[in-house]
Amino acid sequence: MKKNVWITEDNGNLAISYRVKETIHEEQTDFQHLTVVDTYDFGRMLFLDGFVMTSIKDEFVYHEMITQPAVNTHQNPEKVLIIGGGDGGAVRELVKHPKVKQITLVEIDGRVIENSKKYLPEIAASYDDPKVTVLVDDGIKHIKENKNFYDIIIIDSTDPIGPAEGLFSGEFYRNVSEALKEDGIMVAQTESPFADDKLIKRIHQDLQGIYPLVKLYLAYIPTYPTGMWTFTMASKKYDPLKVKAEDIPELQHRYYNKDIHFASFVLPNFVADIVK
Amino acid sequence: MKKNVWITEDNGNLAISYRVKETIHEEQTDFQHLTVVDTYDFGRMLFLDGFVMTSIKDEFVYHEMITQPAVNTHQNPEKVLIIGGGDGGAVRELVKHPKVKQITLVEIDGRVIENSKKYLPEIAASYDDPKVTVLVDDGIKHIKENKNFYDIIIIDSTDPIGPAEGLFSGEFYRNVSEALKEDGIMVAQTESPFADDKLIKRIHQDLQGIYPLVKLYLAYIPTYPTGMWTFTMASKKYDPLKVKAEDIPELQHRYYNKDIHFASFVLPNFVADIVK
Repeated sequence: MKKNVWITEDNGNLAISYRVKETIHEEQTDFQHLTVVDTYDFGRMLFLDGFVMTSIKDEFVYHEMITQPAVNTHQNPEKVLIIGGGDGGAVRELVKHPKVKQITLVEIDGRVIENSKKYLPEIAASYDDPKVTVLVDDGIKHIKENKNFYDIIIIDSTDPIGPAEGLFSGEFYRNVSEALKEDGIMVAQTESPFADDKLIKRIHQDLQGIYPLVKLYLAYIPTYPTGMWTFTMASKKYDPLKVKAEDIPELQHRYYNKDIHFASFVLPNFVADIVK
Repeated sequence: MKKNVWITEDNGNLAISYRVKETIHEEQTDFQHLTVVDTYDFGRMLFLDGFVMTSIKDEFVYHEMITQPAVNTHQNPEKVLIIGGGDGGAVRELVKHPKVKQITLVEIDGRVIENSKKYLPEIAASYDDPKVTVLVDDGIKHIKENKNFYDIIIIDSTDPIGPAEGLFSGEFYRNVSEALKEDGIMVAQTESPFADDKLIKRIHQDLQGIYPLVKLYLAYIPTYPTGMWTFTMASKKYDPLKVKAEDIPELQHRYYNKDIHFASFVLPNFVADIVK
């Protein structure tokens, strides 16, 4: 018989519950409450402060889609920085790409990295790759200390409440722009159009004040509320829609492909209206 | 203070709960348990046998996407049949289209129609249109009694358990093909790739045995489990990907547009693998 134990992400008026096989680990880190559970439908899942960060079943969508569109838009994506992303999924996806030479991950909470290595090894699969440098540090500080250095900066953050709040500010985005080279690209996860339209609009406007090219794109992520998730790409030079499809390498992806690259930027009318 | 009353759709291992402002109506019809609630996040919602059918907040996605791709693929979509769809949303979307002359809705449960008119008037908005004929009848029977008659048949059904089970069978799809003219198109809602991959594959194979062109397409529907929803289009003649974008009329849609028409057929690798 299945256990009748559930873990719930409660968003105030919408709650999503997963039936739990086993609670694997739970701790209070210096920054947040961390829980790893094994669920019937989504396999192992990582929760931070009660919000789903990732699951074994659907993590490929988020991790491919926060990395591949940018890395295939930039002509020479050698040096990539990830802010957050301690589960290691974005690192794993970047390691695959032949043009990426140097991946720096700056995660404020080292316990996310350690627990992901221990309990989510499929996701934290590439920390030992020689391309990868891990810094347990404040991303906001790291960005301020590096100028004109990175080709791509990925903001793989939690929701804009709690420790990640500063990663959604206009000031942070200006500092990110300075940390990028003159043809650099920034990508951030930017929440759901059904729930966070005002936030998406504000981020878009902030970025349009800094970068010549700002584009929203979409992916299906079942474990994030509403299942419709946005990413915002801000680029100093390269246009993701002017990429030649034949230049996109055929890598082992479960979600992303040449056609998804372009289709993910096609917005339903109500989403286009948010950023117009 | 907000009430702490919730309504939950329990899918066994995944449950989605909506905070309820007010229970508007509840009854046992001859076919199913029907509930209309007003929720904080999604407005009024219709549940049948505990499953979300539609919500005021996100119904436009489902209703536009079950109708517009087919109606803009067919060159002459004059006579359209809807099986199920008693909430009236698909009717409303078809009424908008200038080429559609005659819309027949066959819904087995008249109480769904009556309650939708009363409690979801924004969705059941077009029942009085002169193009519309409503039959409270068994769709399976209606299909058998009509041969070579319809240009488009839309299977706007509940999940394949309970009263709608027969609307997912190979035999039903063959009868649908006979009810269509020689250039007809069938569309069905076909559940989620994250949860129902075997069902999607089986339906696809059944339809490929009957129609020359079978294509899966996707839409974001927050109130359906996983949020990633498929529709399957089976066509005797017209290819949805060979439509000329300039022939798609600019109607008042909140989701569908010329570009979404094509982008919704672009499948992530794991979805393409289900139907390859």
